[in-house]
Amino acid sequence: MRLDVVTIFPEYLEPLNVSLVGKARARGQLDVHVHDLRDWTYDRHNTVDDTPYGGGPGMVMKTGPWGDCLDQTLADGFEAGAHGPVLVVPTPSGRPFTQELAVELSERPWLIFTPARYEGIDRRVMDEYATRMPVYEVSIGDYVLAGGEAAVLVITEAVARLLPGVLGNAESHQDDSFAPGAMANLLEGPVYTKPPEWRGRGIPDVLLSGHHGKIARWRRDEALRRTVAHRPDLVERTDPAAFDKKDREILSMLGWAPEPGGRFWRGPEAVEE
Amino acid sequence: MRLDVVTIFPEYLEPLNVSLVGKARARGQLDVHVHDLRDWTYDRHNTVDDTPYGGGPGMVMKTGPWGDCLDQTLADGFEAGAHGPVLVVPTPSGRPFTQELAVELSERPWLIFTPARYEGIDRRVMDEYATRMPVYEVSIGDYVLAGGEAAVLVITEAVARLLPGVLGNAESHQDDSFAPGAMANLLEGPVYTKPPEWRGRGIPDVLLSGHHGKIARWRRDEALRRTVAHRPDLVERTDPAAFDKKDREILSMLGWAPEPGGRFWRGPEAVEE
Repeated sequence: MRLDVVTIFPEYLEPLNVSLVGKARARGQLDVHVHDLRDWTYDRHNTVDDTPYGGGPGMVMKTGPWGDCLDQTLADGFEAGAHGPVLVVPTPSGRPFTQELAVELSERPWLIFTPARYEGIDRRVMDEYATRMPVYEVSIGDYVLAGGEAAVLVITEAVARLLPGVLGNAESHQDDSFAPGAMANLLEGPVYTKPPEWRGRGIPDVLLSGHHGKIARWRRDEALRRTVAHRPDLVERTDPAAFDKKDREILSMLGWAPEPGGRFWRGPEAVEE
Repeated sequence: MRLDVVTIFPEYLEPLNVSLVGKARARGQLDVHVHDLRDWTYDRHNTVDDTPYGGGPGMVMKTGPWGDCLDQTLADGFEAGAHGPVLVVPTPSGRPFTQELAVELSERPWLIFTPARYEGIDRRVMDEYATRMPVYEVSIGDYVLAGGEAAVLVITEAVARLLPGVLGNAESHQDDSFAPGAMANLLEGPVYTKPPEWRGRGIPDVLLSGHHGKIARWRRDEALRRTVAHRPDLVERTDPAAFDKKDREILSMLGWAPEPGGRFWRGPEAVEE
């Protein structure tokens, strides 16, 4: 996979040399190119922004440098044999970046990221490139950053770990929170490792029982409790058929009840854990 | 504000020297300390993880190094005059990190971050420190990362920009997506700056009209359209009293209808933009 990042803070992208993404680059699984947007400015102040049309606070990033840099990036990539570019624009007004979208992006051969600063990029840049390639405007969450660079690190990492051969044996994605399967829509519960006692704290007996069925059930119970406590929205969103008899007992104990024929919702008796 | 980060990838935190956070450090508004967890291991392989009790894939981070490092970090901080520590644990099974939580954290004098790798940290570490300080287990979004370091960069940046005196004149948070006020729950629409024409693309006439009322109305219309397209959940969540007559016309044009006395929902006629 080829990745290009255009930014006014190239040094913010240093973590792309570290850990999982750094190793994937070293192995040739990822071909990463970071570009300094200011290399495409021609005034002595290297201006990339100007005041917004229509007034208001903040500054808007200008079309010129983005257009020139993206044209060159595309030309270089195609010349190096890359194909199928996708523009990924991190912005708080994008659609939510989810694990599903991470999977979708991991199947593309070439991602070009345009992390912005200030109030964002002049709209015409996205309109222009949308005529040439898919443009994904994505938001990594409901909070405001100073710029899109941290979002690029997040998206890159979520995508890179899904590429074939990138995850080592110490890691795995079968049991991930948000992964499809039996634990879909459930958060993972607590985990423990040696020693069996630390500062007077032991571990749940069931984990030493060697009884796989009981351990699996305990893990599911804990996952349910945690999901109810931290992400009631995930319980509400879940197809009720995904809950077995024991799940329903636990949900009911925590004050959740099925609607007449439908999904579970948090009743007035719901227990705060 | 004091920030401590304990990690096995200290170099991943290099962006804390750059841009907004870097400048806040240089000005003395942020006092950042990054610690290498492996400095608190005593075997020749610097082991920080082991297999999970109860079996299963992946590795769990051990209590010992975390406990020793956190104790030392707390002792050093208190000795340097810090107070009121809060532990921030990035994990996909945490509660959602939101702008509201960013504001809450920005009011604390001392944040200690524990970004984990593998399947997470032995539960007893969080249980232990929860007896001494507030512990926030937070998730920055519904996707899986290789570790918590990228989440620390995200949270740090969202929090730092809210500290008094950190944002410069070129930036502002009055108009942020997710900020409270008239645009609460609406995503920001398109922005434009000079030149008025670029590659044959102009800008909307209204922005050149000088008519503040019309410009404000156009911006709100665009924000509504974008929110409907990218984040219908935000429209559904909004108190209907927040929508004025013109808002209702636009929502209705896009196929949204108020429930009998309640919130707007996306009717069967909803228009995909």
